[in-house]
Amino acid sequence: MSTNLSDISIFPRRESEARSYCRGFDTVFVSAKGSEMTSHDGTRYIDFLAGCSSLNYGHNDPDLKAALIDHIQVDGIAHGLDMHTDTKAAFIETFEKQILAPRDMPHKLMFTGPTGANAVEAAMKIARKSTGRTNIIAFTNGFHGVTQGALAATGNGYHRGGAGTSLNGVTRMPYDDYLADNGDTTAYLEAMLEDQSSGLDAPAAFILETVQGEGGLNAASPEWLNRIADLAKKSGALLIIDDVQAGCGRTGKFFSFEDMGISPDIITMAKSVSGFGLPMGLVLVKPEHDVMGPAEHNGTFRGNNHAFVTARVAIEKFWADDRFEQDIKRRAELVTQGLQTIADMVPNAYLKGRGMMIGVDVGCGELAGDICALAFERGLIVETSGPRDEVVKILAPLTTPDETLSAGMDILIGAARHIVNTQKIAAE
Amino acid sequence: MSTNLSDISIFPRRESEARSYCRGFDTVFVSAKGSEMTSHDGTRYIDFLAGCSSLNYGHNDPDLKAALIDHIQVDGIAHGLDMHTDTKAAFIETFEKQILAPRDMPHKLMFTGPTGANAVEAAMKIARKSTGRTNIIAFTNGFHGVTQGALAATGNGYHRGGAGTSLNGVTRMPYDDYLADNGDTTAYLEAMLEDQSSGLDAPAAFILETVQGEGGLNAASPEWLNRIADLAKKSGALLIIDDVQAGCGRTGKFFSFEDMGISPDIITMAKSVSGFGLPMGLVLVKPEHDVMGPAEHNGTFRGNNHAFVTARVAIEKFWADDRFEQDIKRRAELVTQGLQTIADMVPNAYLKGRGMMIGVDVGCGELAGDICALAFERGLIVETSGPRDEVVKILAPLTTPDETLSAGMDILIGAARHIVNTQKIAAE
Amino acid sequence: MSTNLSDISIFPRRESEARSYCRGFDTVFVSAKGSEMTSHDGTRYIDFLAGCSSLNYGHNDPDLKAALIDHIQVDGIAHGLDMHTDTKAAFIETFEKQILAPRDMPHKLMFTGPTGANAVEAAMKIARKSTGRTNIIAFTNGFHGVTQGALAATGNGYHRGGAGTSLNGVTRMPYDDYLADNGDTTAYLEAMLEDQSSGLDAPAAFILETVQGEGGLNAASPEWLNRIADLAKKSGALLIIDDVQAGCGRTGKFFSFEDMGISPDIITMAKSVSGFGLPMGLVLVKPEHDVMGPAEHNGTFRGNNHAFVTARVAIEKFWADDRFEQDIKRRAELVTQGLQTIADMVPNAYLKGRGMMIGVDVGCGELAGDICALAFERGLIVETSGPRDEVVKILAPLTTPDETLSAGMDILIGAARHIVNTQKIAAE
Amino acid sequence: MSTNLSDISIFPRRESEARSYCRGFDTVFVSAKGSEMTSHDGTRYIDFLAGCSSLNYGHNDPDLKAALIDHIQVDGIAHGLDMHTDTKAAFIETFEKQILAPRDMPHKLMFTGPTGANAVEAAMKIARKSTGRTNIIAFTNGFHGVTQGALAATGNGYHRGGAGTSLNGVTRMPYDDYLADNGDTTAYLEAMLEDQSSGLDAPAAFILETVQGEGGLNAASPEWLNRIADLAKKSGALLIIDDVQAGCGRTGKFFSFEDMGISPDIITMAKSVSGFGLPMGLVLVKPEHDVMGPAEHNGTFRGNNHAFVTARVAIEKFWADDRFEQDIKRRAELVTQGLQTIADMVPNAYLKGRGMMIGVDVGCGELAGDICALAFERGLIVETSGPRDEVVKILAPLTTPDETLSAGMDILIGAARHIVNTQKIAAE
Repeated sequence: MSTNLSDISIFPRRESEARSYCRGFDTVFVSAKGSEMTSHDGTRYIDFLAGCSSLNYGHNDPDLKAALIDHIQVDGIAHGLDMHTDTKAAFIETFEKQILAPRDMPHKLMFTGPTGANAVEAAMKIARKSTGRTNIIAFTNGFHGVTQGALAATGNGYHRGGAGTSLNGVTRMPYDDYLADNGDTTAYLEAMLEDQSSGLDAPAAFILETVQGEGGLNAASPEWLNRIADLAKKSGALLIIDDVQAGCGRTGKFFSFEDMGISPDIITMAKSVSGFGLPMGLVLVKPEHDVMGPAEHNGTFRGNNHAFVTARVAIEKFWADDRFEQDIKRRAELVTQGLQTIADMVPNAYLKGRGMMIGVDVGCGELAGDICALAFERGLIVETSGPRDEVVKILAPLTTPDETLSAGMDILIGAARHIVNTQKIAAE
Repeated sequence: MSTNLSDISIFPRRESEARSYCRGFDTVFVSAKGSEMTSHDGTRYIDFLAGCSSLNYGHNDPDLKAALIDHIQVDGIAHGLDMHTDTKAAFIETFEKQILAPRDMPHKLMFTGPTGANAVEAAMKIARKSTGRTNIIAFTNGFHGVTQGALAATGNGYHRGGAGTSLNGVTRMPYDDYLADNGDTTAYLEAMLEDQSSGLDAPAAFILETVQGEGGLNAASPEWLNRIADLAKKSGALLIIDDVQAGCGRTGKFFSFEDMGISPDIITMAKSVSGFGLPMGLVLVKPEHDVMGPAEHNGTFRGNNHAFVTARVAIEKFWADDRFEQDIKRRAELVTQGLQTIADMVPNAYLKGRGMMIGVDVGCGELAGDICALAFERGLIVETSGPRDEVVKILAPLTTPDETLSAGMDILIGAARHIVNTQKIAAE
Repeated sequence: MSTNLSDISIFPRRESEARSYCRGFDTVFVSAKGSEMTSHDGTRYIDFLAGCSSLNYGHNDPDLKAALIDHIQVDGIAHGLDMHTDTKAAFIETFEKQILAPRDMPHKLMFTGPTGANAVEAAMKIARKSTGRTNIIAFTNGFHGVTQGALAATGNGYHRGGAGTSLNGVTRMPYDDYLADNGDTTAYLEAMLEDQSSGLDAPAAFILETVQGEGGLNAASPEWLNRIADLAKKSGALLIIDDVQAGCGRTGKFFSFEDMGISPDIITMAKSVSGFGLPMGLVLVKPEHDVMGPAEHNGTFRGNNHAFVTARVAIEKFWADDRFEQDIKRRAELVTQGLQTIADMVPNAYLKGRGMMIGVDVGCGELAGDICALAFERGLIVETSGPRDEVVKILAPLTTPDETLSAGMDILIGAARHIVNTQKIAAE
Repeated sequence: MSTNLSDISIFPRRESEARSYCRGFDTVFVSAKGSEMTSHDGTRYIDFLAGCSSLNYGHNDPDLKAALIDHIQVDGIAHGLDMHTDTKAAFIETFEKQILAPRDMPHKLMFTGPTGANAVEAAMKIARKSTGRTNIIAFTNGFHGVTQGALAATGNGYHRGGAGTSLNGVTRMPYDDYLADNGDTTAYLEAMLEDQSSGLDAPAAFILETVQGEGGLNAASPEWLNRIADLAKKSGALLIIDDVQAGCGRTGKFFSFEDMGISPDIITMAKSVSGFGLPMGLVLVKPEHDVMGPAEHNGTFRGNNHAFVTARVAIEKFWADDRFEQDIKRRAELVTQGLQTIADMVPNAYLKGRGMMIGVDVGCGELAGDICALAFERGLIVETSGPRDEVVKILAPLTTPDETLSAGMDILIGAARHIVNTQKIAAE
C-alpha cells in the first residue's frame, strides 16, 4: 500500500462530515492487538473504548484470529444470505450449549442485519406483530440506534433531530432513579398503565438497557427491573432487553440481566457478539413470540459467516467456565478504585455504571472532554457519555491484563489531576 | 468442528422462523469458490444468486482473500469505529482515483451501518435535512430495505405489513412503464408536482433503483431517468439512486446510472461494495448536501476495516481498465440468449432487466418457482423475484467463466423445459 | 346596538389574521333575504356564493324562519347534546320518508360535530374501524376540511402546510380526467391495488367528491364513478362520498351521486343540510358499517336542535316532489349560458362543473380574481376556486328567481367584458 | 308536527349506534327553560348537566331568546362565512370591552369551526407554526376533542381507540397531583425538558385544562399552573389553556385561569361561549402568535351569527359587573354542602373540582352510575365523569335559582342514600 499516512487530507476531502471519533482521536491507526492500538508512526495507545464495547475480547484475539484465517484459507463461506452453513450450525449449537441451555433459556436466534439498530428494529416488529399493538415504551436516556424505528426509541435529542421526520409509535417513561427525590419511577408507569384515560396506549413492549451506555452509564437496580418486568407482563407487553452494549460480559455475566430474576421475551445483541469486531446482529426471542414469517424482516448480510466463526470460538474460549467472569470482576474492582481516585478530586463527582461498564460523572461535559483529550495525548483512548457528555466512561476490553488496566488508569488519573489542578477545580 | 451436518435439526430448533433462503436451498453449505458453492456432502452448485448481487466478484476471490488474510495476519484493525485507519485511507484513495475522479464525481463518502437499508436511512435523513422538507417520493415495486424509514419507501406489501406501525413520510409514484398503455408516467408526476392542490407535499428527494431487483427486474429507460432527474431538480428535490443491488458492475458499469446522463445527488451502496460479501454500507453524497453533523447518523460498525481491504483490492483488480466491463457485456449476452430460449417455451414470457441483472418473466410465480426448484435439484442456485415471484432472475457473479455460465444456463433451460413439458404449458 | 358600522377598525384590531372572505368582500353586512345581502349602508348585493353552498335555499327562507322562530318562542330545545328530542325525531322521520326511503337507502344517520370536517373525520374513523385497515385513498384536488384527519385527505397545499405536523394515513390518487392525455385514471389505481408490491397499502376507504368544489369544479363522469365504486368494492374498501358542498340539490338532485348508479357506504353532509345556514354535520352510513360505539366519536354540538327544525322544513318544502329539481335544472341552464358568454371572451376558457355548481376556467387566477373584484364593486358576490384560483365559480342559491339570476349573470358578464377589454385579453 | 313521541322507534331504526346521552336519559325532551327540561309526557327534570357546561346561563334565557328572535325577525344574517357583519362587530366590541380590556388581555379572536375540537385543532396549528416545532405536551386525563389532531392530545383510551390510525405529535405528561405520593409532577417535566437525552422533543406548546371536566374534575392548583406556565416560557413553548368546558364562569370567573397569575398565549373556547347552546368555537391568541394566514385554518361555519347575537347579550347581561360571580360562589357552596353529604355516606369518597364544576368521587363507576340512574328516575339529569366514571359530576346552569339547586341536590342525596343503603355500602 503506497498511502502516505502522514498525509491525511483524504479524510476531510472525501469522507463525510458525519465522521466523529476520528475527530477526537486524530491519528491514523494501522494495527491493534489485545488492548492496544498502534498508529501509523508507531505510537501505541491503550484502548479503553474497545469499539464502544464491540471488542470485549480485545483486538485480534489470537484464537479467534487463527480460526478466522483457517476459515478463509479453506474457502469457507463468507456470505451466504441466510442459507444453512456449517459455520452457522456450529455457532448456533455452541450458543445453545454454552449460553442458552445452562441458563434455561428457550429463546430462538434471529440473525438480523449486522447492526444493533437492525436488531432493535426487528425486535420492535416482533413485539408489534405478536401483540397486535403499536405503542412501545422506551425510557429516558435510552439509546437504541438511529434508523427510523429504533430512533423513535432513542432519547438523544441530537440524533432525534437528525431524523427530519416525525418519530412515532414510542412513549417515553422515566428510567430508574430518574427523579432522585421522587422515589420509584415505576409507580408513575403503573398509574399510567392502569388509568384508562392516561393517554398511554396499550404497549406492545417495553424496551430498555439494564445499563445505559450512551445515556450516561445509568444502571438500573434489580428491584426496578423486576417491577418493570412485572408491569410488562401485567399489561400484556413484551419485555425487550437491549443488550447491544451491556451484553457479552460487559457487566460481568454474559447477559447484563443475569441474576436479576427477570426473563426477557426478546434480547437484542450486536457489538461484541462476533467477538472480533465483525458486524453481526442477533435477536433472541422466546418461541411463542417467534412470529416473523420467512424474510418478513430480511437483509442481505443477516448471515455474516466470518462473524459466526469468531463468535463461536469466543464463546468456547471465554464462556465455557466461570474463569472469565472472575477476571471481569477483579478488573472491574481495579477500574473502580481508579475512578474513585478521580471522583475524589472533583466536587460532587460520583461513580456510575456496573461491572466493566463504569465511569465517573464529573458534572460537566467540558471537564470530562478535557480529561479524555489529555489522556489521549498521553496514550489512552477513552471517551465520554451522558446527556451532556459529563461522564468519563471506561469500556476497556474485558481481557485487558491487570497491568495494562493499571497503566491506563494511571494515565487517566494523571490527566484528570492535571486538568483539575490547572483549572483549579478543587474539592473543598 | 464436531458438528454433524447431516443433522440439521439445530436450525428449526433454534433459528427463527424468519429464515428464508435456506428453505428453498435446503442443504448445508461448507465452502465456496468463484461461482460455485459446495455443500456438506460434497455436492457442487453453480451459484446464479451470488448473495443477491453481494458477490459480484464471486466467492473468495483469490486476490481479495489473500489481501484479507494478510491484513488479519499482521493484526490490522478489524474494528475501529469511524477512526482513521490506513485501510480506510487506502480504500477512499482508491475509490477516489479509480471510481470518482474518472467520472468527474465530486461526491464524498459516508460510511453508514453496514447494510443497504442503513445507507438508505442515512440518504433519506440527508435529503430531509438538506432541503428542510419531509416527503420523499419512492416508486412502485421499489425495494429499499426493511428498517422503518427505508421500509416506508419499499413497495412490497409483505414487508410493509411486517412493520406493525404506520409508515409515513413517503409518497408512491409509478415507475417507468408502470402502465403499458398510458405512456409516460412522468407526466403524472409532473402534473402532481406543479399542481398546488394535488396533495403531493413538496419532496425532499426522489429515491429509485435504475433496475428494480426485488421488484421484478424492471429497468428504467434513460429517457425516463432523465425526465425524473429534471423533475427532481425543478422541484427542489434531491435525486437518490439506490445502487445497492444494481451497482458495482451488475448492470455493466460500476454504477448502474453511468452513460444515462444523470448526476445523482446521493447514491446508496452496499452488497458488492466490499467485493467479498462482507457487510459494508456506503453513501456517496455531493459536498453541498453533506449536511449530517458528526455522528448525527452513527452506528458501531460504520467502519468495517476487513471490508475496506477487500473493497480496495476489488476496485484495483476489476475497475482499473475496461476489460471487466467487456467481460460483463459478453456474459450478459450469453445469459440473454439462454433466457430467450426459456422465454420461447412459455406463452407471453419475456425478458426483463439489464446487463447481468436479467431474467425471464414466465407469467406466474408457481411456474417460476417450480423451475428454480428443479434447477436446484440439478445443481443450480437461482431465485425468483417480482410482485408475484413471476420472474426467474439471474444474478450470477460477474466473474463467472463463460463455460460455467453456459453450464448453469443449460441446467436452467433443461429445468424449464421439463417443467413446461410436464405441465403442458406450450406456446401455441 | 350602538356599533358604528362605518368604523370597522374592530376587525383588524381584534379579529385574527386568519379571516379571509371579509378581505375580498370588504363591507359590513347587516341583513339578507333570499339571494340578496344588504350592507350597513343599504347597498344590496346579489349573492352568488351562498355561504359556499351553505345557503342553497337562500337567506332567511320565510318558512324555515317562521318555524325556527316558533320553536324558539315556545322554548323548544336549543341544545340537548345527543338526547332524544321531538325536533330530532321529526327531522329523522322526515329525512327517512322524503329522502332515504324513496331512494331505497338503508343508511343510518350519525350526527357529528356541526361541521363538514367533523363529518369527514367521523367517516374516516368508521371506515377504519369497520375494515380494520388504516389507509384511505383520497384524490387530487379533493377538499375535505382542515382538522388533522380530514386535512390529510385534502389536496390543497396551502391548507396542508398549515398543519405543522405530518399528515398520515392517506394515499393520493388521480381524480377523473386528471391527465387529459392519459385516459382513464382508474387503470392506474387498479394496477396499484392489484400489485402486491406497488406500495399501496390495502385501503379502508375511498373518499371523494363527485364535483370538487374547492378543487376547481372538476366533475367526475358517471363512468369513472362506477369504476371507482367497483374498485372500492373489489378491494374491500368503503366508498365515502363527501357531499358536503355538492349535496342538498347543488348538482340538481338531493344527493350529487343520484342517477349515477353507485351506492356509497358512507355519505358526509354539512353546509346546506340545515337549510338555514345553521351549523350541522351529518354522516349517513349503511347499517353494516354503523360500528362506532356510544360516543366513540362525540362532540358537544352534535345535536343542533335549531338546525333540526329548519332542516326538516327545508326537506318538506323543497324535496316532497320534483318541482324544485325542475327549477334547478332550468336555472343551471340559464347560468351555463351566461358562463359560456364569458368563456367565449377568453382564449382557451371553458366551463366546468355540474348543475348549479358551475363556473368558467379563465386560465389564470389573476384574471379570475379581477373579474370577481369588479363584479363585487358592481353588486355581485362571487368567488374563485381551483388550485390557482383560476375558476370563476357560481354557487347561487338554488332558489334564486330567474330574473335575479339573470341580473347577477349580467353583472358578471359585464365585469368580465370590462376586464378582458381593459387587459386586451382577446380571443383571436 | 305529527310525530308520535311515545313511538321512539325512529331512533334505533335510523340513528347511529354512536348516540350516547339518550341511552342514559331515555325519554324525549320537547322544551326547556332555565334549569329545567320537559319531556314529551310533561315530566319536568332539573338539569344538572347543562349540555356538559354548554348552557351555563340555562336553557332559553329570556333576554338571549328575545335578542335572537329579533335578529331572525328582521332577516339578520344567519350565515355569512367569515364576512364582516354587524352582529360580529358588536360581539367582538362587547367581548373586547367587557372581557379582554378589564383583564388587560391583548388577545385577538379567531372564529374557528363551531366546536371545541375545532378550536383546539386551530390552537395546535398556531403553536406549531409560531414556534416551528411539532411536539405538543398534553396531560394525563386531559380531554380536548376527538378529531384527529385534538384526539392525539386527549387521554381517554376509548376515544383514542376510535381513531383507527396512529395519533402522533403529542407527548403526555402527568397532571397536577397525578401521583399523590410523588409530590410535584412538574419536577419530572422540568427534568425531561432540560435533559437533552430525555427523548422529549422540544415542545411547541403545553395544552391543558385548569379543571379536567371529562377526566374526573381534577383541579390544578395555582402553584402547579404557575410552574407549568414558567416551564412553558422557559422551554419556548406556548401555553394553551383549553377553557372549552371550564370557561364562561363555570369555575367562578369568566376564564378558569383568572386570579391564578398566569397569562396563556392561547385560549380555546366553545360550549357556553354563545350562551344559548348554539355552536360556536373561539380561539383567543396573543397578537405575536396570530400567525395563521387568511383561511389557512378555515371552515364553513366559522361565523355563526345567531351565536354572535346571543353571545353578546350573555356577556352584557352576566359579566358587566361582579354580581354573577357572587351568585356562582354562593351556589357553589350550596352544591358543595350537598356533595359532602354524599361523600360522608361512602367510604373514601371525596369532593373534586372547583367552582360550579364539582363532584364527588365515590370510588367506582358502577356506584356512581347507579346513583345517577336513580336520580334521573326521580327527576334529575346528572352524569358521571372520570377514567372509570367514578365521579358524580354537577354541571348545573350557573343561573340555577338556589331553591332549584337545593331541590336537585336533595334528589341526588336521596338517590345516593337509597343506593348506598340498598347496596350496604356503609362507611364504617
